[in-house]
Amino acid sequence: MSISMYQTSVPIFIRMLGNLNQILEKAAAHAEKKGFNPQNLVNYRLYPDMLPLSSQIQIATDTVKGCVARLSDQQPPVFEDNETTLAELSARVTKTIDYVKTFTPEQIDNTEEKTIQLKLGSYTPTFTGQRYLLHFVLPNLYFHITTAYAILRHNGVDIGKADYLGVE
Amino acid sequence: MSISMYQTSVPIFIRMLGNLNQILEKAAAHAEKKGFNPQNLVNYRLYPDMLPLSSQIQIATDTVKGCVARLSDQQPPVFEDNETTLAELSARVTKTIDYVKTFTPEQIDNTEEKTIQLKLGSYTPTFTGQRYLLHFVLPNLYFHITTAYAILRHNGVDIGKADYLGVE
Repeated sequence: MSISMYQTSVPIFIRMLGNLNQILEKAAAHAEKKGFNPQNLVNYRLYPDMLPLSSQIQIATDTVKGCVARLSDQQPPVFEDNETTLAELSARVTKTIDYVKTFTPEQIDNTEEKTIQLKLGSYTPTFTGQRYLLHFVLPNLYFHITTAYAILRHNGVDIGKADYLGVE
Repeated sequence: MSISMYQTSVPIFIRMLGNLNQILEKAAAHAEKKGFNPQNLVNYRLYPDMLPLSSQIQIATDTVKGCVARLSDQQPPVFEDNETTLAELSARVTKTIDYVKTFTPEQIDNTEEKTIQLKLGSYTPTFTGQRYLLHFVLPNLYFHITTAYAILRHNGVDIGKADYLGVE
């Protein structure tokens, strides 16, 4: 009995990105109800040198598409980081979900020992596939989704833990 | 080749709670440097109906000790949720790390199919061990640590992603 790399990645990515899209919909509804420009949310930061909502969504999606691509030796689609509206951010999340859905267990499983080399500016860590997924991808994904949630919650969007977890 | 329940829980819990304690130390140093009462951070919320920093730490630690206890049929230690200072919150995190460190792979592994019944007020979900860990424990743990991080970051504490991830 054991957990597979696929089970620990693809279904979680699809679920969490789906929840994120629901949260973005609630953010758009909130802006409309309150009569403010939703772009104020897109550009909102919790502190001047933190990244805005748009970057949180961009990095969350990059983390996910990079993971499934690297584990299976594919080239991930390039997104231009040019989203300026909530609708464009939602579309990016949807594109990422659609991309992740194309991966099969056969492509992702048995990559625990695969060497994964990242190049993130001057930070160039080398991971095994398992360590990459458990110690880099998942904490980063949850970090950026939670930070997006916190930005929206701080701005009065009516969301709760169930929206984040996607409790049925 | 596969991932084990132990690898997906205990080392991650120890690492993330250790990172959280480093972040709390930086928060205490920030309050001292700026000359404000660190209790202002303990009670800080990002929105009036969100939980304060203290609760984020309490729930993060409860999530972790509940997980290792439930997976191995132990009774977790009860913490009274009476912390009012950063030092007391750090002590709670340290107590949790010490508790988690007592668990061996033999106690946690092969619990993928174990039935886990939660009672969280009116929310009483039933999970398999694997689903509990991957779809409840980890997203909750990362949610509360990231929210604690966001509260402190929003208050000017000089922390970054590396503090959260614990990059060496």
